[in-house]
Amino acid sequence: MSDSYTPTPEDRFSFGLWTVGWQGVDVFGGPVRDPLDPIESVHRLAELGAAAVTFHDDDLVPDDTERQTTLDKFTKALSDTGLHVEMATTNLFGHAAFKDGALTANDRDVRRYALSKLLRNLDLAAELGAGTYVLWGGREGAESGASKDVAAALDRYRESMNLLCEYVVEQGYDIRFAIEPKPNEPRGDILLPTIGHALAFIGELDRPELVGLNPEVGHEEMAGLNYAHGITQALWHDKLFHIDLNGQHGPRYDQDLRFGAGNLRGAFWTVDAIEGAGSGKAYDGYVHFDFKPPRTEDMDGVWESARACMRNYLILRSRVRAFRADPEVQEALTASRVDQLAVPTLAAGESLAALREEKHDIDAMAARGMGFERLDQLAMEHLLGAR
Amino acid sequence: MSDSYTPTPEDRFSFGLWTVGWQGVDVFGGPVRDPLDPIESVHRLAELGAAAVTFHDDDLVPDDTERQTTLDKFTKALSDTGLHVEMATTNLFGHAAFKDGALTANDRDVRRYALSKLLRNLDLAAELGAGTYVLWGGREGAESGASKDVAAALDRYRESMNLLCEYVVEQGYDIRFAIEPKPNEPRGDILLPTIGHALAFIGELDRPELVGLNPEVGHEEMAGLNYAHGITQALWHDKLFHIDLNGQHGPRYDQDLRFGAGNLRGAFWTVDAIEGAGSGKAYDGYVHFDFKPPRTEDMDGVWESARACMRNYLILRSRVRAFRADPEVQEALTASRVDQLAVPTLAAGESLAALREEKHDIDAMAARGMGFERLDQLAMEHLLGAR
Amino acid sequence: MSDSYTPTPEDRFSFGLWTVGWQGVDVFGGPVRDPLDPIESVHRLAELGAAAVTFHDDDLVPDDTERQTTLDKFTKALSDTGLHVEMATTNLFGHAAFKDGALTANDRDVRRYALSKLLRNLDLAAELGAGTYVLWGGREGAESGASKDVAAALDRYRESMNLLCEYVVEQGYDIRFAIEPKPNEPRGDILLPTIGHALAFIGELDRPELVGLNPEVGHEEMAGLNYAHGITQALWHDKLFHIDLNGQHGPRYDQDLRFGAGNLRGAFWTVDAIEGAGSGKAYDGYVHFDFKPPRTEDMDGVWESARACMRNYLILRSRVRAFRADPEVQEALTASRVDQLAVPTLAAGESLAALREEKHDIDAMAARGMGFERLDQLAMEHLLGAR
Amino acid sequence: MSDSYTPTPEDRFSFGLWTVGWQGVDVFGGPVRDPLDPIESVHRLAELGAAAVTFHDDDLVPDDTERQTTLDKFTKALSDTGLHVEMATTNLFGHAAFKDGALTANDRDVRRYALSKLLRNLDLAAELGAGTYVLWGGREGAESGASKDVAAALDRYRESMNLLCEYVVEQGYDIRFAIEPKPNEPRGDILLPTIGHALAFIGELDRPELVGLNPEVGHEEMAGLNYAHGITQALWHDKLFHIDLNGQHGPRYDQDLRFGAGNLRGAFWTVDAIEGAGSGKAYDGYVHFDFKPPRTEDMDGVWESARACMRNYLILRSRVRAFRADPEVQEALTASRVDQLAVPTLAAGESLAALREEKHDIDAMAARGMGFERLDQLAMEHLLGAR
Repeated sequence: MSDSYTPTPEDRFSFGLWTVGWQGVDVFGGPVRDPLDPIESVHRLAELGAAAVTFHDDDLVPDDTERQTTLDKFTKALSDTGLHVEMATTNLFGHAAFKDGALTANDRDVRRYALSKLLRNLDLAAELGAGTYVLWGGREGAESGASKDVAAALDRYRESMNLLCEYVVEQGYDIRFAIEPKPNEPRGDILLPTIGHALAFIGELDRPELVGLNPEVGHEEMAGLNYAHGITQALWHDKLFHIDLNGQHGPRYDQDLRFGAGNLRGAFWTVDAIEGAGSGKAYDGYVHFDFKPPRTEDMDGVWESARACMRNYLILRSRVRAFRADPEVQEALTASRVDQLAVPTLAAGESLAALREEKHDIDAMAARGMGFERLDQLAMEHLLGAR
Repeated sequence: MSDSYTPTPEDRFSFGLWTVGWQGVDVFGGPVRDPLDPIESVHRLAELGAAAVTFHDDDLVPDDTERQTTLDKFTKALSDTGLHVEMATTNLFGHAAFKDGALTANDRDVRRYALSKLLRNLDLAAELGAGTYVLWGGREGAESGASKDVAAALDRYRESMNLLCEYVVEQGYDIRFAIEPKPNEPRGDILLPTIGHALAFIGELDRPELVGLNPEVGHEEMAGLNYAHGITQALWHDKLFHIDLNGQHGPRYDQDLRFGAGNLRGAFWTVDAIEGAGSGKAYDGYVHFDFKPPRTEDMDGVWESARACMRNYLILRSRVRAFRADPEVQEALTASRVDQLAVPTLAAGESLAALREEKHDIDAMAARGMGFERLDQLAMEHLLGAR
Repeated sequence: MSDSYTPTPEDRFSFGLWTVGWQGVDVFGGPVRDPLDPIESVHRLAELGAAAVTFHDDDLVPDDTERQTTLDKFTKALSDTGLHVEMATTNLFGHAAFKDGALTANDRDVRRYALSKLLRNLDLAAELGAGTYVLWGGREGAESGASKDVAAALDRYRESMNLLCEYVVEQGYDIRFAIEPKPNEPRGDILLPTIGHALAFIGELDRPELVGLNPEVGHEEMAGLNYAHGITQALWHDKLFHIDLNGQHGPRYDQDLRFGAGNLRGAFWTVDAIEGAGSGKAYDGYVHFDFKPPRTEDMDGVWESARACMRNYLILRSRVRAFRADPEVQEALTASRVDQLAVPTLAAGESLAALREEKHDIDAMAARGMGFERLDQLAMEHLLGAR
Repeated sequence: MSDSYTPTPEDRFSFGLWTVGWQGVDVFGGPVRDPLDPIESVHRLAELGAAAVTFHDDDLVPDDTERQTTLDKFTKALSDTGLHVEMATTNLFGHAAFKDGALTANDRDVRRYALSKLLRNLDLAAELGAGTYVLWGGREGAESGASKDVAAALDRYRESMNLLCEYVVEQGYDIRFAIEPKPNEPRGDILLPTIGHALAFIGELDRPELVGLNPEVGHEEMAGLNYAHGITQALWHDKLFHIDLNGQHGPRYDQDLRFGAGNLRGAFWTVDAIEGAGSGKAYDGYVHFDFKPPRTEDMDGVWESARACMRNYLILRSRVRAFRADPEVQEALTASRVDQLAVPTLAAGESLAALREEKHDIDAMAARGMGFERLDQLAMEHLLGAR
C-alpha cells in the first residue's frame, strides 16, 4: 500500500544496522533471532523507503580477516540501492575490556585502546562518507561513589574529544561529532547524563564547533525530561547535529520502542520541534531511528517495526502541519499570547531604572486566563485525526 | 548537648527564612502552623549554630507600608546574633500573576513586572550584604506543547539575565547570580531542568562570569540524577556558586526533606564532593539548607528538623574525612586505579598516528577486576560508623 | 458544534465538584481563580453533557449554618438539570487535624473525628442518592520509618472499613465503598499504595462484597504501572466499583491533567479496558473525571478542559470500537494467538503426570514470531485516525 | 577479621547460585566473567558464613546428560559444608521459547512446556529439601495493549497455580510457593506487578494457604514503593513466605546491587520490618540475597560483594536493635503516639450512633505536633552509629 504516509528517500530516514540487527539478548535471556547480514539490511531498508544507514564498527566489520570483502559487499549494496552512510559510531561498550568505560576508564590502557579503536573507525567513517560521528558513552560512569573521580573523568573526556577533533582536522575529514547523552543503564550513573550536561561540556572543548549532540528520545524521557524541549534547547545552541528517535515509558529501563510507541503526545511535539514550527530553528539532518524490535518478533516483525517508525513519523508530520496551518489554531496561539514571547521585554532604548519604577496592575495580570487548554485540545484533535 | 556534631558559625550553615517559616500549605490541605516572625527565625537559627540566613523578598517584606520598620528590626536581629545574609532571592512564583512564568511568561507585562520586582529586590540584597542572588524559575515552563515557544522563551531568559547582570555592574553591586534548575513541579516541564541545561545556557550570556548555579539535591534526584556528580561537573565548570541541601526519594513530588533523609548514601557522596575529596575543586560557599519541615510537626519539630540538617552534615563530614584518611581506603583506591584517571591518556609528545597503530591486550584488560565493591563497602562501613 | 463526539447523559459522564472548582492553590502559590458556586457547576456541567456530579462534604456544605439552604439549592439544581449525584466522598485530608492521617492517624481522637465525619456524610450521600462512596486516604501514610506502625495502621484501617460497612447495612443504605489507592503525595508513602494493595486489603474485611476500588489513572502511573492492566485486574476480581480518569506523565508529582493529556496511548487502552473489549468484563459505572484544570486557566479554560475530558473519551471510544471491528485487526489478533490464551492449558481430563512427560519442540516455539508489532501498529493507526 | 558482623549459619543467610554466578551479560555487552561451578559456590558461600543456597533448574542442571553426576557432586558439597537448599525455582524467562511469557504465553504449547518444566523441577526441589518454591514471572507481560488479553492471562495464571498446588499436594511435597512480583523489565508491563497485586491474586486460588510472596527490594523500589511497608503488609496477610534482598536507586533499570547499596535508609527499615520490631509479625524464613555483582568485578569482587550483603545486614540489625532498645527512642515513640495506633478506634460496646454525634476539638488536634522529625533523627543517628 503506497499512500501519503509511505516514505521516500526525500524524507531522509535513516536506521542503525544494530536496530534491525538486534538479536534480543538482554539481562534475563539469550538471542531470539539469528544474526542479520548487513547487506540484507541495506536492501530491505531501501525497499521500505529509507535513505541511509548508520553503523558501529563492530556491527559491520567485526572480523578483521574478512574486513575488505565485507566492505566491498557493503559499498556495492549501498551503490545498488542508493542508500547513504550518514553517520558512523564505535562500539565502546560491548567488550568486557570496557566494563569501566572507555574514554574515562580508570585503566589508562583501556582508554588508549578505546582511542585507538576510534581513530581507526574514523577512517572508515570518512571512507564511507559519514558526515556525523556519534559517541555514546554508555559505560562511562559508575555504580559507586569513590570508584570514579568525576572531575578527572571529565578532564579525560575533554582530552579525548580534543584529540578526536584534532584528528579529523589533521586528516581533513568532513566529519562532526555528536555526543549522545544518557542518564543511566548500563552504568548506575553515566557521565554527561542529559542534553544539558553534554551541551555544557562541549563549551569547554578546544574546537566546540566540531562537536554537537545526538539526543535520543528514550534517554531524556528516562530522566522524566521533555524531549521536544531538550532538542529545542540544543537547536538554540546550534548543537543538534543528529537525532535518535524511538519510544519509552518514562523512568524505567531503556525500552527502545519503535518511534510513536511510548509517549505519543511527546512524539507529536518532537516532530513539531524537528520541523521548527515555533520561532526556533528547524533540524536539517537525517531522521534517524534507534530502536530495538521487541524480542517477541521474528524477522517479519522486525521489518514491520522499522516500517512503522517511518510511517508514524509521516503521520505525525502530517498532523503537525495541519495543526500549524489551521486558522483556529493560529487564532488560539494569539489568544494565548504565544507570539508576545518573541517581543523583547525591554524595548530598545528603555532604561532599567525606568522599568524599576514602573507601576503594574498585577491583579489584572492574575485575572487573565492563558487559554492553554483550548490550544492543547486543538493539538490533541489534530493528533487524533479528529479535525 | 554539645559534641563534635554541634555546629558553629565556622561551619557556615545557612537557612532560608522560608524553610522554617513554611506553614504547610500544599495542594491537598491548608496551613498547619502559624506565620513565623523572621526575627524569631534569626534568633533561633543563631542559637542552633547557623551562620547566615537567606530570604525571598516576600518572606521578609511582604507589606510595603511597614517595610522600613521590618528591615530595621531584621538588621538589628542580624547584628544582635552575628548572622549574615549570604544570599537573597525573589519570589516570582507565588502570585497568580506568575501562573505562566515570570521572565519567560507569554505576557510581556508580566515579564516586565517580574524584572521590576527583581531590580528592586537586588537593591535590598545589596543593602543587606548578600553576595549571591538566586533565581529559581519554578513557573518558567509549560504543561502543553504549543503554549510555550521554547526558543523564544530561552531568548527572553537570556535577555533578562543579561539585563540583571548589567544592572549589578552599573550599580557596582558585589553580587553574583545563581540559577536553580528543576525538572518539573509546579509546571509540567520547567525550562533549564537540570544542572547541565543551566550550565549550557549560562555559556550564551553576555557576562557568563557573573552567573553560576544553585543546585538543589531534590531537584536533581527528581530526575534520577546523581547530585554529587552534578555538583562536581558544576565545580569543573567553576560554576558552583551556591548549594541547596535537602532530601528526596527519587522521581516523585518535591519532598524537601531535611538533609540526610531520603538518599543517605547520596548525601555522603554529596559531602565528599563539597569537600573536594577527589581531584576536583572544593565548594567554598555557605552550606545552605532548603527544606520543608513536614506538616506533621509543630514549631518544636521545625527547630528539631533544622538542627538535624546541620547535625547530619557534620556527622557525614566526619565520616567522609575518616573514609578519605583511612590507609586501607587509600590502598583500595589505588587498587581500583582511581589515580590513573588523572594521568593524560596521550603522553606529551605522543602522536595519534602511533596510538592508532598501537597493539592492545584486550583480553588482559577484560580479565582485570576493578575492585569497586570492596572500595564501596569500605565507604559503607565508614558511613555506618562501623569502622 | 454538535458532532459524534458531543456527550449526552447516556454516556454517563460525571465530574467532581472539586475538579472544576479547584482554585489553584499549590505548594508554591496561592489561588488563581475565585471560589465556584456548586450550583453554577451543576448547570454548566449539565449544559456540557455530563450526567452526574460527585462531591466531598466540604466542597458542598463547608459551613454548617447554611447547610440546609445550600442543600436545597443544590437539589433544586440537580432537579432542574436532571443531573444525578452518583458518588460522594469525605474530605479527610485538608484540615490540619488530618496531618498524620484520618482513619490511621496515631492520635485516637483524630481517628474518631474522622469516623464521625464519615458517618455524618454517609447520611448525606444516602439522602442525595449516591450509590458509591469513595475513600481516598491521601494522608494515611508516613514520611519516616518509625512514625507509623504499619501493621497497626492496617488493623485500624480494617476496623474502620468494617464499621463503615456495618453502618450502611444498619441504616439500609444502598451504598458500596470504593477505595482509591495512591503511592505517595501528599505523604511520603501512602498506605494501600496501588490497586493491588487495596484489592488484597479488601479480602481481609468482614463484608468484602461492599468494598471495591476507585482507581485513578494518574495515581497508578505515578508508580509506573499500566492503568489498563490495573483496572482489568480489578474487574477480574469484580472490584472495579468506580473510576477516576485524568492524565499524568509518569513518576513525578500528581498532575491531574484532563483525560487524554499525558499518556495518550495509555488512555486508548484504558477505554478499551473499560469497554471490556478483550475477554474481561466491561466496567458498567459512571465515567468519572478527577482532574485539575491547570492554574494557567481562567473559568473559560476550566469549562474547556471539562468539555475536552468528555470529548477525548468519546473520540477514543470511537477509535477503540473501530479498532476492534476492523477485520484486519481481528486477523492480526488471531495471528498473534491472542485467542489461544482463553483456552485452558490443561485440557479437561488430562493428567499432570502425562504433561510432565510430554515432549516439546522448544526450538519451534522459539522461532515463531508473535506478530505484536503489526498488531500494535494497527492500534496506533486507529488511534491516530489514520485508517 | 571475625567481629560481631561476621555471619554464622544461625543468621540463616542464603544466596541464589545465579547471583555469584552471574557472568555479566546485559543488553549492551557480553560476559565479563567465566562460568562458575555451583560446587565452588557452595564451598565459598559456606566459608563466608551462609547457611543455604537456592537455584533455578538451569543454574544447576542445564545439561541433562550429566544431570545425575552434577546432582551427586552438588549434594556432596552440601553435605560437606552443611549448607541447605532452602528454596528452588524454575527458569521460565531465559530461553527464546519464553519470549512472550511462560504460564501466560499466548501460545498454548509454550504454556504446556512451562508447566512441564515446572513439574519436573518441583520433584528436584523436593528431592533437595527445598521448602519454598519461587515463581518469578519476568516474561509474563506485554509491551503493547492488544497483544495480551489480561483477564485471560490472569485466568491462565490462576489455572497454573492451582495445578501446581494440586501437584505438590498429590506428591506429598512439603513445599509452599512464593510469587515474586516485578513491575517491568524485561517486559514493558509485567502481570502481578507489585506485592499488592500478587497478594490479591492469591486470594482467588483454590489453595491460597500454599501460596505466598517472595518480594524483592529492587522490584518494589522500581515502582517507587516502600519495601518495608510492602513486606509489612505481606506479613499482615500471613503471606511473606520468602524475601529477596538487594539494592536499587528508585525507578530505573533493575540494578540488583548488593544489600545496603542503593536506598540505605530503606534497608534499615527493611531489617526493622523483618525483625517485626513494630506491632507486626516478624519474618521467620531465610534471609535471601538476590543481587548481581557488578560487571566491573572479577571473582574476588564477586565474593567481596556476597560477603558485604551479609555484613551489611548484620550491621543494620545491630543498629535496629540498638534503636529499638534506646530509652530515648521509646520515649519519643510514645511522644509521637505510635502506641495509640494499636488501640481500637471504637471501644468495645460503643455505638456508631454515639460516635456520629460526638463533639471533637479539631483545633486542638490540629495544633498538636507529632514529633516525627525527632524520632526519625534518633533513627538516623543509630543508623550512622552516631549514638
